Amino acid sequence: MTTKALIQQIRKKESFLCIGLDTDLEKIPEHLLKEEDPVFAFNKAIIDATHHLCVAYKPNTAFYEAYGIKGWVALEKTITYLNTEYPEIFTIADAKRGDIGNTSTRYAKAFFEDLNFDSVTIAPYMGKDSVEPFLAFEDKHTILLALTSNIGAYDFQTKELEGLELYKQVLEVSKTYNGSENLMYVVGATKASYLTDIRKIVPNSFLLVPGVGAQGGSLSEVCKYGITPDVGLLINSSRGILYASNGEDYAIAAQQKAKELQDLMKQELAKL
Amino acid sequence: MTTKALIQQIRKKESFLCIGLDTDLEKIPEHLLKEEDPVFAFNKAIIDATHHLCVAYKPNTAFYEAYGIKGWVALEKTITYLNTEYPEIFTIADAKRGDIGNTSTRYAKAFFEDLNFDSVTIAPYMGKDSVEPFLAFEDKHTILLALTSNIGAYDFQTKELEGLELYKQVLEVSKTYNGSENLMYVVGATKASYLTDIRKIVPNSFLLVPGVGAQGGSLSEVCKYGITPDVGLLINSSRGILYASNGEDYAIAAQQKAKELQDLMKQELAKL
Repeated sequence: MTTKALIQQIRKKESFLCIGLDTDLEKIPEHLLKEEDPVFAFNKAIIDATHHLCVAYKPNTAFYEAYGIKGWVALEKTITYLNTEYPEIFTIADAKRGDIGNTSTRYAKAFFEDLNFDSVTIAPYMGKDSVEPFLAFEDKHTILLALTSNIGAYDFQTKELEGLELYKQVLEVSKTYNGSENLMYVVGATKASYLTDIRKIVPNSFLLVPGVGAQGGSLSEVCKYGITPDVGLLINSSRGILYASNGEDYAIAAQQKAKELQDLMKQELAKL
Repeated sequence: MTTKALIQQIRKKESFLCIGLDTDLEKIPEHLLKEEDPVFAFNKAIIDATHHLCVAYKPNTAFYEAYGIKGWVALEKTITYLNTEYPEIFTIADAKRGDIGNTSTRYAKAFFEDLNFDSVTIAPYMGKDSVEPFLAFEDKHTILLALTSNIGAYDFQTKELEGLELYKQVLEVSKTYNGSENLMYVVGATKASYLTDIRKIVPNSFLLVPGVGAQGGSLSEVCKYGITPDVGLLINSSRGILYASNGEDYAIAAQQKAKELQDLMKQELAKL
């Protein structure tokens, strides 16, 4: 998907919501456990109930790998369902991969070609030749970890590397990579005030912002410091939407939570 | 597996060789492609021919994910075969994972419990709470990326973070993590001279050293700077062994290449 198509979808739906499909058998409604594929049954119901309120879905691959082969089958069914039924949706494989060049090429093919995701999250630690194989794919997007929403972000990311915090170095250095026009960045919502500095380095890039809701970030804060004329934000919510109810009304409850966030986003977009 | 059992195996086999199972359908002998599961057939033959010459196998998960469900089936069959037929072997899932706490816990369960690997490689970028869920597993090992063998290592790893190169900060900071006794580190063989400094920070930790052979590192250099009284090294070779021949003699050819490395390792161990 082109960035232009993503922006058009945001304007049409008045939403920049991404729903994280972190589907956990211990948290989904019990009555689904008798389905042949409970994970896919849950995802399908959530997607059908919320697709008009969000612009992106983000399965975190860990939640699927944890169920072995069955999990990968559920992931494949989920991405195929999205690409078939809702092709306008931007899809993110939250995989946080990254390896030496020929190995990164394998991962890129797995996520971009075989599974046909629009984007994948990548860890920057191994540098240029671990990222560029992903950037080589046209109209596919590489979402590089910059500043994450967890406490461990303070171990290295916020410390100064040659005069500039590591996460800022990641932003600066990655701009020089071949195919850097296909880059987006992960920036945790729990650190919204950092967004002013981030926007000085990447004024127009899309930022994927996890951590609104369960992890304590605020939507209005993120917009205040991070929104651009073309929006430039995808704000993710996972648990707050998925597990709004664990009864038979789970899909409707998820829809309501998504609607609440979409309403707030509509207000923010009206300010542009 | 305990570290003690790994050291005993090294002394018994006079080898600290790890064989990287980066199995690629485009590189394995053509006659295997008619097998029901060519990847597993190849791995099984390589393992049967080399298990007495090495102490560890390291499947890189990218090569399996690239084949989707079939790839995961081949990975499961490979690890099950190793655990059943050669339980003395140390197994490494070269996955380079890492995510926020509850997600890292998922990955840890996937690799340590479901697949029953002895260890997994982890990227350090997200810090403490992304690593500690792996360290919580008894007699399982977390192999943290420190200094990798690729050119991109110079983007961030070798630059100074608060007065100390980032890879050294990773070594220092990770020593303070809960369960740090279960840590090992990835250090690329192409940077053997860095090992003197690394040993000052982690004098006894096991180092997984990729990049001997195809990536240009030298075994004797690595030993000169990195070996400890308890060896403390696992030296990986992948392509140089796996693809020594693409004819019907591929397993014997792989065995010969493994034997050449084991002979060199025997000489190095004799110096201790």
